[in-house]
Amino acid sequence: MNRNGTIELETKPSVYGFAAVVGTKEGDGPLRDYFDYILEDVRVGEDSWEKSESMLQQYSLSMALSNCGLKEEDIDFAFAGDLMSQCTSSGYAIRGKDIPFIGLYGACSTMAESLCMAGIFAEKNIGKYCAAITSSHFCSAERQFRFPVNYGGQRTPTSQWTATASGCAIVSQHKDAPYIERVTIGKVLDKGVTDANNMGAAMAYAAYDTISRHLKNTNQEPNDFDYIVTGDLGQVGSDMLYELLAADGISIARNHKDCGLMLYDRERQDVHAGGSGCGCSASVLCGYFLRKLKQGELKKILFTATGALLSSIIVQQGESIPAIAHSVELTGAQEV
Amino acid sequence: MNRNGTIELETKPSVYGFAAVVGTKEGDGPLRDYFDYILEDVRVGEDSWEKSESMLQQYSLSMALSNCGLKEEDIDFAFAGDLMSQCTSSGYAIRGKDIPFIGLYGACSTMAESLCMAGIFAEKNIGKYCAAITSSHFCSAERQFRFPVNYGGQRTPTSQWTATASGCAIVSQHKDAPYIERVTIGKVLDKGVTDANNMGAAMAYAAYDTISRHLKNTNQEPNDFDYIVTGDLGQVGSDMLYELLAADGISIARNHKDCGLMLYDRERQDVHAGGSGCGCSASVLCGYFLRKLKQGELKKILFTATGALLSSIIVQQGESIPAIAHSVELTGAQEV
Repeated sequence: MNRNGTIELETKPSVYGFAAVVGTKEGDGPLRDYFDYILEDVRVGEDSWEKSESMLQQYSLSMALSNCGLKEEDIDFAFAGDLMSQCTSSGYAIRGKDIPFIGLYGACSTMAESLCMAGIFAEKNIGKYCAAITSSHFCSAERQFRFPVNYGGQRTPTSQWTATASGCAIVSQHKDAPYIERVTIGKVLDKGVTDANNMGAAMAYAAYDTISRHLKNTNQEPNDFDYIVTGDLGQVGSDMLYELLAADGISIARNHKDCGLMLYDRERQDVHAGGSGCGCSASVLCGYFLRKLKQGELKKILFTATGALLSSIIVQQGESIPAIAHSVELTGAQEV
Repeated sequence: MNRNGTIELETKPSVYGFAAVVGTKEGDGPLRDYFDYILEDVRVGEDSWEKSESMLQQYSLSMALSNCGLKEEDIDFAFAGDLMSQCTSSGYAIRGKDIPFIGLYGACSTMAESLCMAGIFAEKNIGKYCAAITSSHFCSAERQFRFPVNYGGQRTPTSQWTATASGCAIVSQHKDAPYIERVTIGKVLDKGVTDANNMGAAMAYAAYDTISRHLKNTNQEPNDFDYIVTGDLGQVGSDMLYELLAADGISIARNHKDCGLMLYDRERQDVHAGGSGCGCSASVLCGYFLRKLKQGELKKILFTATGALLSSIIVQQGESIPAIAHSVELTGAQEV
């Protein structure tokens, strides 16, 4: 039974295979050595950005399978979602594959949401191998949520750069690190942010709520983790998160990492407040953190991907932007 | 463990509470006596269709709770999704409620998808009460997928009428009919339909695949069920489903019901090929079928909601429309 959204995965399912695929800009960033594949052309040979993004998910799935010696037909269930309306990238990526599919929508929290669900299905022995997949693409997302890229609109200092990237994790009951120990499911919170160019602010409170609940429900504190990892709060959202936690006497500044701040060199790569998009936390998790956990260089992290449930149409109607965050506690070696 | 997507729910969780809320047109149809609430004004006092649709979900959730004597704080997890881009109706409906939320996207299959997930969470004792919610609204959906309603575009004979409706089911381990016996998770299939006004055709093959798998995996035949219920294939899709199954020597014509054909009086209400939208199968399930199962008037149904994963943008780029269907086997009395 859960405790205020926190679910204990007693069998500690393994993230048995994983892979991260990124675009050229992401492949030119500080984490370039950690990705399975860096695209030479972000169009991936397709004639639309939506189709390109869909290809990213197909790449990350096939590389995650290959990394652990599995085939598509070994996957019992796939959980996937993305930022595109009607989760286009995921639906078209999985189309025609002989894999039972559960479509998710959690905006940029989708890597954590899908990993929670894949972890639960593996833990409960519903599926032997369950895949969690997500993606984002700068060009498809900017066109949908803000302006077509060709328009060349000026970006505000609080804006974040939607990553062109995809991550896939395959969860099973193998005894191979990294392991999923516990997950905490997010709540939809809204503190009144209406600026579609300030996603970090919209998401900070959701991160605060989920991280606080996870720590409280599991009787842990930030120092129990090597890193408290957030999805893509960027600089603005990260600062807000510190303030919110500080008011409760909790400090994570020492061991906090934000995927949106890790993926790019903010100065050199001109990404303003940092990276964002489902693919941001997905590629940093599946490229960097899962690898470090597998290699034993990290013992334990709390991965909290945050999503701004931004709908252009309802924000244009004057509504503010709700957000959600889901947490996944991952360990690098089985705890005794 | 599953068998090709079919999951046995051994504890047979109960659909403990449920409610259906519909618009004026739906409330004027043949099922008018089965709904919990018929709106007098499909705007529900809101100033946009998206906000109105979000209210529908709030209504169906609060009525489902009230029907079984629960409160919002009793709900451990809510699974919800809808047709709006970024699942706007669901995110805003659940916003600010203190309920861990798992956002789904399955287009018109969402009532079955959410019920599968709520059933699994209840079966595995992850949550005591898990809600499955979805909705659609004629005016928000037509504007997004086809034309603004005010435009008054001519509708083709194959087109279906997006229902203004919402359904909510609350699943738990109580010993109260109806029960969820088994579920089968759908695969994303695409047989090349490109006409956004012919959703039934796009979805028929997905329904065929999931129903066939469910029957085969559970060693049952159509006559074992009072009804094989499809979500919203309408007349065109239902006819295609009969043909596809007939080629395998399976006949469901005798006991098939399609929610899209039940919700409206097609002649009198001018809905062409039938109803559609997440709210169509949701309201017919939560209004009619669950009630009949609870009252013992039905023994067993196979509820298969179908979703066309229609993305306007990628269809305009020349892509065809993939579809998915999920099945939920429901019984009215515990089988011995």
